[in-house]
Amino acid sequence: MSPSTVIIRNQWYVAAYGEEITGELFARTICNEPLVIYRAEDGEVVALSDRCIHRRFPLSKSRLISGDRIVCGYHGFTYDREGTCVAVPAQTRIPKGARVASYPVVEQDSLVWVWIGDRELADASAIPRAPWLAQEGWASVRGLEKIEGRHSLLMDNLMDLSHETYLHGGYIGTPEVADTPITTEVDEAAGVVRVSRHMDDAECPPFYANSTGMSGRITRWQDIEYQPPCLYRLHSRVAPQGHYPAEGYVPGHDADDDPGAFHTEIVYALTPETDHSVHDFWMVARDFAIDDPEVAEYLHTNNRTVVLQDVDALTLVERVITEEERVGGTVTERSINIDTGALAARRMMKLLARAQGDEMADTPARV
Amino acid sequence: MSPSTVIIRNQWYVAAYGEEITGELFARTICNEPLVIYRAEDGEVVALSDRCIHRRFPLSKSRLISGDRIVCGYHGFTYDREGTCVAVPAQTRIPKGARVASYPVVEQDSLVWVWIGDRELADASAIPRAPWLAQEGWASVRGLEKIEGRHSLLMDNLMDLSHETYLHGGYIGTPEVADTPITTEVDEAAGVVRVSRHMDDAECPPFYANSTGMSGRITRWQDIEYQPPCLYRLHSRVAPQGHYPAEGYVPGHDADDDPGAFHTEIVYALTPETDHSVHDFWMVARDFAIDDPEVAEYLHTNNRTVVLQDVDALTLVERVITEEERVGGTVTERSINIDTGALAARRMMKLLARAQGDEMADTPARV
Amino acid sequence: MSPSTVIIRNQWYVAAYGEEITGELFARTICNEPLVIYRAEDGEVVALSDRCIHRRFPLSKSRLISGDRIVCGYHGFTYDREGTCVAVPAQTRIPKGARVASYPVVEQDSLVWVWIGDRELADASAIPRAPWLAQEGWASVRGLEKIEGRHSLLMDNLMDLSHETYLHGGYIGTPEVADTPITTEVDEAAGVVRVSRHMDDAECPPFYANSTGMSGRITRWQDIEYQPPCLYRLHSRVAPQGHYPAEGYVPGHDADDDPGAFHTEIVYALTPETDHSVHDFWMVARDFAIDDPEVAEYLHTNNRTVVLQDVDALTLVERVITEEERVGGTVTERSINIDTGALAARRMMKLLARAQGDEMADTPARV
Repeated sequence: MSPSTVIIRNQWYVAAYGEEITGELFARTICNEPLVIYRAEDGEVVALSDRCIHRRFPLSKSRLISGDRIVCGYHGFTYDREGTCVAVPAQTRIPKGARVASYPVVEQDSLVWVWIGDRELADASAIPRAPWLAQEGWASVRGLEKIEGRHSLLMDNLMDLSHETYLHGGYIGTPEVADTPITTEVDEAAGVVRVSRHMDDAECPPFYANSTGMSGRITRWQDIEYQPPCLYRLHSRVAPQGHYPAEGYVPGHDADDDPGAFHTEIVYALTPETDHSVHDFWMVARDFAIDDPEVAEYLHTNNRTVVLQDVDALTLVERVITEEERVGGTVTERSINIDTGALAARRMMKLLARAQGDEMADTPARV
Repeated sequence: MSPSTVIIRNQWYVAAYGEEITGELFARTICNEPLVIYRAEDGEVVALSDRCIHRRFPLSKSRLISGDRIVCGYHGFTYDREGTCVAVPAQTRIPKGARVASYPVVEQDSLVWVWIGDRELADASAIPRAPWLAQEGWASVRGLEKIEGRHSLLMDNLMDLSHETYLHGGYIGTPEVADTPITTEVDEAAGVVRVSRHMDDAECPPFYANSTGMSGRITRWQDIEYQPPCLYRLHSRVAPQGHYPAEGYVPGHDADDDPGAFHTEIVYALTPETDHSVHDFWMVARDFAIDDPEVAEYLHTNNRTVVLQDVDALTLVERVITEEERVGGTVTERSINIDTGALAARRMMKLLARAQGDEMADTPARV
Repeated sequence: MSPSTVIIRNQWYVAAYGEEITGELFARTICNEPLVIYRAEDGEVVALSDRCIHRRFPLSKSRLISGDRIVCGYHGFTYDREGTCVAVPAQTRIPKGARVASYPVVEQDSLVWVWIGDRELADASAIPRAPWLAQEGWASVRGLEKIEGRHSLLMDNLMDLSHETYLHGGYIGTPEVADTPITTEVDEAAGVVRVSRHMDDAECPPFYANSTGMSGRITRWQDIEYQPPCLYRLHSRVAPQGHYPAEGYVPGHDADDDPGAFHTEIVYALTPETDHSVHDFWMVARDFAIDDPEVAEYLHTNNRTVVLQDVDALTLVERVITEEERVGGTVTERSINIDTGALAARRMMKLLARAQGDEMADTPARV
């Protein structure tokens, strides 16, 4: 019944922001696999296993030569961008089949996506999109925190925004968030869970008051679209109280049909590092004040503060439940209506786990 | 044969000094149970499980409202002082039976006692007393250290004061402590072990010379009364050499029958935190110089120094024996006469462990 | 297939440099055994188990009296230099057979050798020699680092000097080291592995340029003589290009037959501390500039830098392979010609392990 630690491998994950990857060797662990990542001279991003086949030395502690070859920093085994060993010291014969694993990479929407599992199944067209991150008319701020907690804790956290009122009061939480019921919708074919909370008459939290300049009561829509395991999009719409979009408006898609409202696309990439840690990539894109550096600075600082509140909370919860699992084998939770979205996401994760043949702890269902 | 790590749960333990507990939420782990403790507006002390039933968030990282209700800092589950859940977010129905464990608490002799085990068995009249800590004619200093070592190591330490000569030389130890034989007495009905060492003609250690003003040789009595597992009382009597109390004087009880001597009641509460760590509450009460802040400061500083010498030694021993248990499964000790009191206490602990159905490693008996 | 963590106990190991051991108690763990070591008043070195038999307190945290007796710092158990308990507190009878283990010690070539295993088998004449460390006409610098990695990783490192080119470029590595093939020779009877690399026309690395004053091309010989598990000797000979010794010259023995060359004896003692850590004693003896403190300082600083590069690399590799062993049970390596010496040393270690009845992981043999 404990929050799962199973990692789904046959999936695309965000490994890095595009701007993190340069001509320098870069180490990051994704789904328990240590990767060395770099941008070759032609601009393509390369991801290889970060362990030399000779004596397991991390290639990320090595040297890049000729733009795209890694020379191991211990004994000089040399690999090309496909991971093939092309030179070893003191002999001309290369051992047959000598290579490190290479991983499919796609750079899209300013994100570097990687596929860790069975590469036969890697289909780049299945990568979920977040166009606002690299699109005219939008500006974004972003950051990355590592959480010493399992992926599923971050998923729980993001799928239930009622916690904004308690954990993030004074930033993004107001009483209406906890008080307004949600609607939850599961699209199994698309592999998407949607959770919506539309507040018609709500207090404007500082996060939006200070960035949009609005004062007074607002309508505030939160439309979550989560495609487990990795990409979470919160289509956030705030407008003066009583102001509604044109009929047929779809949150996250038709900002032009909704003039007079402020749209913020809050994107999280949830990438497991290990069974008990997760990379929390957070991005905030907006369609207002896009050239205003003060608004950018304000949103960056405030969202980072909110993320760090989550990091602290989830680190605590991970410590608690790890200890409870150690002592008692399991963790007892008690779920209520606000957890519907998180439980739906857990069920979808369980299906993905079954599809790859994993046993996965049942999610609690007492609502 | 290793020093036991079994924890006796059906017992009263000191959870805190009364003055530590205010209107703020306070976290302390006792017998492996994480507690949140606070003082309600009516002055009563409340102790609850420190884990929200919803997602295991520590309630001690939360907020107290209306004087005695805890609102979980993550999603707002709210608990009253009995631990009953009285509110959850976004719905009015409270899940049936939703509650966190609450623990019986008694505040007495300036100490907050808590009962972790079967609450049917909690009998407040069985709490051992240390009246000098809150009694006219006495003054006390106190402190608290956490030791990264099992409860039984602290018990061993306190039951055999010959170590004062070696570990605490220059503070409380003199050659006579190690040289003078002890008498040991076990009162199984009362659950008490007594160890007495009466030195008729001893050097006055700095601890007493500086606090009482005595110089020259002294008579020095150490009468230990230990009620396992928690309360240890050392009735210490020092007087000019040759000066004795009235017939029938009982150490720790009749200070008035013993004019001209200086009485110090050294009290330790040994409260297991986890299997491998213990809270070491130390208190020194005196019936002399009770209004003298310099004596208070001197005794505080010096006793704390002595306690920290014990902390260092026991931390070292815990590391050694944990490693020996890891490698060899057990620890081999060699006991002699000075250990009679400690071995008696171990046997009493074993009886308590059996009473609660625990298996407990045999204590070594080679003397 | 993982690099072995087996420790060979029936062997002589360097426990300390002679100058480390004085009249103070000194703690060092060798082959998982905690030792307390000291120099008695007659100058002899004593090594005893560092655990008091009474309550396992480390004797190294105790006091030495009368020149050669240890009084335990906790309760005063007292031991003589043979480890026999000669006094206990508060009684005159010493428990029968009370003693701590003592270990055979030999001080030779400025090194303190200790024998941890079966003392019946300890034969001082079998201790390998490193005479240059305490011999007229030679001067040496030395140091000690602890590596959080298994003994076999340091063995691998030292047996394959091609890594000098990659890990130690700019210090002792030049392209010729990695490019020149080696010859390997195993003398099973003597328990020695020899690896030689003779470079006829090589760049002079800074290490030798700055210490000898040579410039231009050199002949550079590296003749390794390793007697597993502990003593590694690298007979290093550098001379102006084209300059060779007299016929019959044996590296490491006949420096007089080789005038005009510079001889450096680089000695490592590889002493396991625990299954996953090793003491790396390093020494550099030279037969030139023996009275020049600047050369001494230069060689000390530079060799220490090189050793710390190895420490960093091996610490990383240990972490990697420990994790791989945890997850997958084993580590997959890929060996080539440069590893011949290291693989020979592993095989010799396996024979030693079998001789003491240990199971030992097979070494990989894919070359």
